[in-house]
Amino acid sequence: MRYIVGIDIGGTNVVVGTVAEDGSDITGVVSEPTFPEQGPDAVVERIVRLAKASIAKSQGKTVTGVGIGAPGPLDTKRGLVLLTPNLGWTNMPLRDRLSKGLGLPAALDNDANCAIYGEWWQGAARGAKHVVGLTIGTGIGGGIVLDGAIYHGASDIAGEIGHMTVDINGRRCKCGNYGCLEAYASGPAIAARAVEGIEAGAETSLPTYVGGDLAKITAQVVYEAANDGDAFALEVVRDTAKFLGAGVANIINIFNPEVVVICGGVTLAGDRLFVPLGAEVKRRAFKPAVDVCRILPGTLPGTAGVYGAAAAFLHQASAR
Amino acid sequence: MRYIVGIDIGGTNVVVGTVAEDGSDITGVVSEPTFPEQGPDAVVERIVRLAKASIAKSQGKTVTGVGIGAPGPLDTKRGLVLLTPNLGWTNMPLRDRLSKGLGLPAALDNDANCAIYGEWWQGAARGAKHVVGLTIGTGIGGGIVLDGAIYHGASDIAGEIGHMTVDINGRRCKCGNYGCLEAYASGPAIAARAVEGIEAGAETSLPTYVGGDLAKITAQVVYEAANDGDAFALEVVRDTAKFLGAGVANIINIFNPEVVVICGGVTLAGDRLFVPLGAEVKRRAFKPAVDVCRILPGTLPGTAGVYGAAAAFLHQASAR
Repeated sequence: MRYIVGIDIGGTNVVVGTVAEDGSDITGVVSEPTFPEQGPDAVVERIVRLAKASIAKSQGKTVTGVGIGAPGPLDTKRGLVLLTPNLGWTNMPLRDRLSKGLGLPAALDNDANCAIYGEWWQGAARGAKHVVGLTIGTGIGGGIVLDGAIYHGASDIAGEIGHMTVDINGRRCKCGNYGCLEAYASGPAIAARAVEGIEAGAETSLPTYVGGDLAKITAQVVYEAANDGDAFALEVVRDTAKFLGAGVANIINIFNPEVVVICGGVTLAGDRLFVPLGAEVKRRAFKPAVDVCRILPGTLPGTAGVYGAAAAFLHQASAR
Repeated sequence: MRYIVGIDIGGTNVVVGTVAEDGSDITGVVSEPTFPEQGPDAVVERIVRLAKASIAKSQGKTVTGVGIGAPGPLDTKRGLVLLTPNLGWTNMPLRDRLSKGLGLPAALDNDANCAIYGEWWQGAARGAKHVVGLTIGTGIGGGIVLDGAIYHGASDIAGEIGHMTVDINGRRCKCGNYGCLEAYASGPAIAARAVEGIEAGAETSLPTYVGGDLAKITAQVVYEAANDGDAFALEVVRDTAKFLGAGVANIINIFNPEVVVICGGVTLAGDRLFVPLGAEVKRRAFKPAVDVCRILPGTLPGTAGVYGAAAAFLHQASAR
């Protein structure tokens, strides 16, 4: 059995693992902070070191390639990271630098694409023919997997589902648009809506969770308070479900997929989110499309991107 | 050269033509009102008669198959029209009835899919690898053509782009959802927004175009008045461009296509619509995706669905 190193590069952490080519095994999972402020050379060196550590931990496995998931926009064919505000990279030949550093062939794809590809390969959406997924964290990424391949579009930008307008005159998004799904349902957006409510006088115990420092309220704090029964926190979660529900309904009406998979910290909200989310989708999308679609939380938290990067390498290698 | 009969069934009219298998020629284009109120048998008989007339007009061409575009939802594999409120059909075996009536093999696909497939095959989007299109009339249909094939999704429902929520708390749509693109930018929605404005006291010459009978205001009347310089009518067209722009921006962020094609009466508004539409898309969608995408009016008004139905037959036949 051959193994592939999968590398998932985030703005905060890099996660690396060594994955069997049939997906049955993952070993040598290691992680370190990305420290993008140290500059691209330091980050590339750290990733090479992590990948070597992962291979070393995998004790005698035959490693034949490297898959890399990175924030975009990318040029996947040329292996370039065109621009990443979070990492501060421009036209960075990431694929070839890591390939050279590790002495192995490599493939590059978008981080959200890789996470959803991982969920299709070995996770919640395993084996489904039409899969669309969201990765909800600091932002909202998206990935589309059709007939076992990541859908890239004309110039590797496809799948920006988080930047779908759902509220035409709504909140300004960091991307410059108004009313994007991300502006309501990303982690920071959930926290911001909670803080706005508190500042407008909402009765809630939320401030006690952060010693009165509203700047410390995160989406996870909101879920905690909701789980403890705080009525306002529950309202924020239900509102999140409404926005996500409109976005997922759009996905279902457009793609008619077997599975919509939702990854990231937001899944911690559990049924308090997924039950009203399902109801909102039912209210909005076409019944024959809703009936065939399962809306599932990702089942590979932490490693979906690693699995997916390895799978992207295998797919690109088989297409050559 | 073999020829295929293409049949485009709408709620108002049926259009039939006989199309060369390489798309280079269309002959015997005939059309009649659908008269759905006469019941399915009468409609099927009328379509068979029209198809025979088209073949007869095509003087000695070798016709080898029939492609049918019909309103959905459909089961394309079994050739069934599952339900069409406009035509009043339920579980109608349309493909096999027309195949039997004409003594030719037949294929069935969704009418909007066929229109966009026609535009991909011989029209505005010719040869592009990733094409998404809207057909704007009484409703807003959508079609997705990827790698030369219509994208159907898990259960033939995919492409309902007109029922994408763009205004989460917005206007009620006929589909039951709130804030669908169709609720703002279909022909009747454009007319309804104009009438609401007049009833709210807008200063406009629009009523003089319809002898004071506001019920007679259609989208086309609004375009006429806009072309004549009526400020309020121009505002309605600009608002339409804003809603369509949000919808097209979503398509571009999600699909990253080479072409978005827009078909139907709305294209009569010309640059007054397409110029602000392009500006709205630029304001909302990701630049690297906008840069590679052309937004084009359809170039086969009246026959896009006929071309596309013929192409759908050829595609299904080649896949067998």
